[in-house]
Amino acid sequence: MSEAIEKGQKAREISIALSAKTTEEKNRALLSIAWALLEDQGEIIAENKKDLERGDRAGLPENILDRMMLNEKRIKDMSEAIRLLAGLNDPIGETVEEIEKENGLKIVKKKVPLGVIGMIYEARPNVTADAATLAIKTGNAVILRGSSSSICSNQALVRTIHRALAESGFPEEAVQLIEDTSREAAKDLFHLHDYLDVLIPRGGKNLIDTVVRESSVPVIETGAGNCHLYIDETAQPEMAIRIAVNAKIQRPSVCNAIETILVHENWFAQNGKALLSALAEHGVEIYGDGKVTETWPDAKKATEEDWYCEYLALKISMKTVKNTDEAVQHINRYGTKHSEAIVTEDKEQAARFMAMVDAACVYHNASTRFTDGFEFGYGAEIGISTQKLHARGPMGLDALTSTKYWIYGSGQIRE
Amino acid sequence: MSEAIEKGQKAREISIALSAKTTEEKNRALLSIAWALLEDQGEIIAENKKDLERGDRAGLPENILDRMMLNEKRIKDMSEAIRLLAGLNDPIGETVEEIEKENGLKIVKKKVPLGVIGMIYEARPNVTADAATLAIKTGNAVILRGSSSSICSNQALVRTIHRALAESGFPEEAVQLIEDTSREAAKDLFHLHDYLDVLIPRGGKNLIDTVVRESSVPVIETGAGNCHLYIDETAQPEMAIRIAVNAKIQRPSVCNAIETILVHENWFAQNGKALLSALAEHGVEIYGDGKVTETWPDAKKATEEDWYCEYLALKISMKTVKNTDEAVQHINRYGTKHSEAIVTEDKEQAARFMAMVDAACVYHNASTRFTDGFEFGYGAEIGISTQKLHARGPMGLDALTSTKYWIYGSGQIRE
Repeated sequence: MSEAIEKGQKAREISIALSAKTTEEKNRALLSIAWALLEDQGEIIAENKKDLERGDRAGLPENILDRMMLNEKRIKDMSEAIRLLAGLNDPIGETVEEIEKENGLKIVKKKVPLGVIGMIYEARPNVTADAATLAIKTGNAVILRGSSSSICSNQALVRTIHRALAESGFPEEAVQLIEDTSREAAKDLFHLHDYLDVLIPRGGKNLIDTVVRESSVPVIETGAGNCHLYIDETAQPEMAIRIAVNAKIQRPSVCNAIETILVHENWFAQNGKALLSALAEHGVEIYGDGKVTETWPDAKKATEEDWYCEYLALKISMKTVKNTDEAVQHINRYGTKHSEAIVTEDKEQAARFMAMVDAACVYHNASTRFTDGFEFGYGAEIGISTQKLHARGPMGLDALTSTKYWIYGSGQIRE
Repeated sequence: MSEAIEKGQKAREISIALSAKTTEEKNRALLSIAWALLEDQGEIIAENKKDLERGDRAGLPENILDRMMLNEKRIKDMSEAIRLLAGLNDPIGETVEEIEKENGLKIVKKKVPLGVIGMIYEARPNVTADAATLAIKTGNAVILRGSSSSICSNQALVRTIHRALAESGFPEEAVQLIEDTSREAAKDLFHLHDYLDVLIPRGGKNLIDTVVRESSVPVIETGAGNCHLYIDETAQPEMAIRIAVNAKIQRPSVCNAIETILVHENWFAQNGKALLSALAEHGVEIYGDGKVTETWPDAKKATEEDWYCEYLALKISMKTVKNTDEAVQHINRYGTKHSEAIVTEDKEQAARFMAMVDAACVYHNASTRFTDGFEFGYGAEIGISTQKLHARGPMGLDALTSTKYWIYGSGQIRE
């Protein structure tokens, strides 16, 4: 039996008991984990060092190594986030709908856990703690499958989580780590249809595409963000430039950073140089269409590939357009349905843009960087959905619930 | 270019315009279809005859031919259902959530269409009209792929729908039929990830399993119903027998009919014979465990396969159990998470059963036959979801919507 099947069976078995855990039991488990992480930080950091040294020898890029790194500050933040999670409202058991039928049937639709959640993710040990604790809060079992590059960190974190769960009398099988980090072991999860209710990939485009293509378990697509900013004819120059710079450079490696700026040609004629100069000042490389390269000789010529590209770096593509409709067409063709913004003083253009752009989040006069479960006030985030089923945009605790109908009768049959 | 890609592109293009249609425009299109179906019924029935004759020659079973059949009464019912659909509340544009942030950002989450829906279904021409009109009501484009056995009926229905749409000034591309009924053409839909937002299979277990296994488009699993009735120790005999007979025989071919009865051994000792005799009186064949075959010599011995079997016929399997927990274990092992019922006078046992059984609908003292969008008062139904993502149980109009966040700012950037 593969490790995935064995752990899948255990998760499925325990999921019924987990769905009946009280809010108090779940919060006690969370606080126990928050505390245990601080107690075990020495060991966790030591195990994390092994991953970092191995990664360094293997030549992993600096930004990946930075994302993998755990230090006292980061573990303290992790622990604090779990304490805050314990304080959030528990969605499980909430009544969504109540129907009374003429024949006396009473139908009550309530929120229940999804059951068993599979997480597949790359070099981000923080996802281990996030996914485990969000699952506990929502009464789900979770099967974690991180990348080989972070295996020592993930094992250390899960050992601590297990100890904390045992100490608070919560079933350890609620959180299981797949220790086999081969590609085959990941693929086993794609077909665990009998044991997993959902599979959530967190990571780069290749990982997500593979999971979407191959998994027969329902998937929530997350995170790919080829986001755009459209600067309309009537945009205030100062505001447009401030938003463009913020959305590109505040944290270029994340999915809600922008990758392309579309600019109304009249605005560009007036303010293009100021925009380009502000970006260049922050070290952003420009890939532009003809008008852009004419105006800014340092800019490289953008190719078709640039319009599709999620740089996740201090690079941006820029294109001039005739009007809002051309901007919308470009976005609906090349975008990934994540976050799209318009800067304009014209409310009609804003409304048109926001209605016609097909994306989880559409912004008027604000930076796309706000697409985030914490910024939206959800207090937690398991990922950002770029698909339209089940959950769209930042996914908080509700995204980890399903519903169930309780129907109460007194002998009713259907005539 | 395959037919699926060509139609997928058209659907994706038109979907933006459809999402902006007003409730009035959509309802006008629906009423136009309701009327046109009555006008064209002669031609539709003539085309349907061709399918029936071909099916008869090919030796299709009587119940399939009956499901394929369209007559004046059925077309009138179809037309009437569409008129009622026009009267239902339009979910598109409804505000789900409003968030005001301290920095002045206003976040509004509203319901939007899913975009493009793919339907794959078997010999049920009524699905053609249902899916087309539910899609129109919710501002979605739909691509229909019925079976070869009903192709003439489906073509006739879609011709009528197109004429009615044209007459009411609604884009015909909202409803498209894949005319190539080969298996390959169906499989093309499984990989239309760029153009379809969801694929909904309606039909037998094989069809649904194939779609779930092979599709990279998000799927909503529908319909497989291996439903159970558990008769607990304290069940009122008359009520238990009435519900058992209703849930089995009122319409055996549908997914919310029961396939297995689990009986508390003490209740069985008292009332087993009466239950078996009531079922036998209605022509139900019994497949039972040792106690059942001892009590009822006509019963055949149930095998492991019987516990998995969705008979969809006047057959039932029956098993005696020691208590509620054994019944729950059986259901969670063999069930398809559709509809499960307990009959008991003991509220504690009912609560325990309903909490621990993992199914879309759990019933206390009522027949499973009520799991249905119309019975629940939704006024429409696109199918019954047996998965936990997006929608669970009977799916009304809301199941064909997604959400989108509109974020209004005044120049906010993320610090």
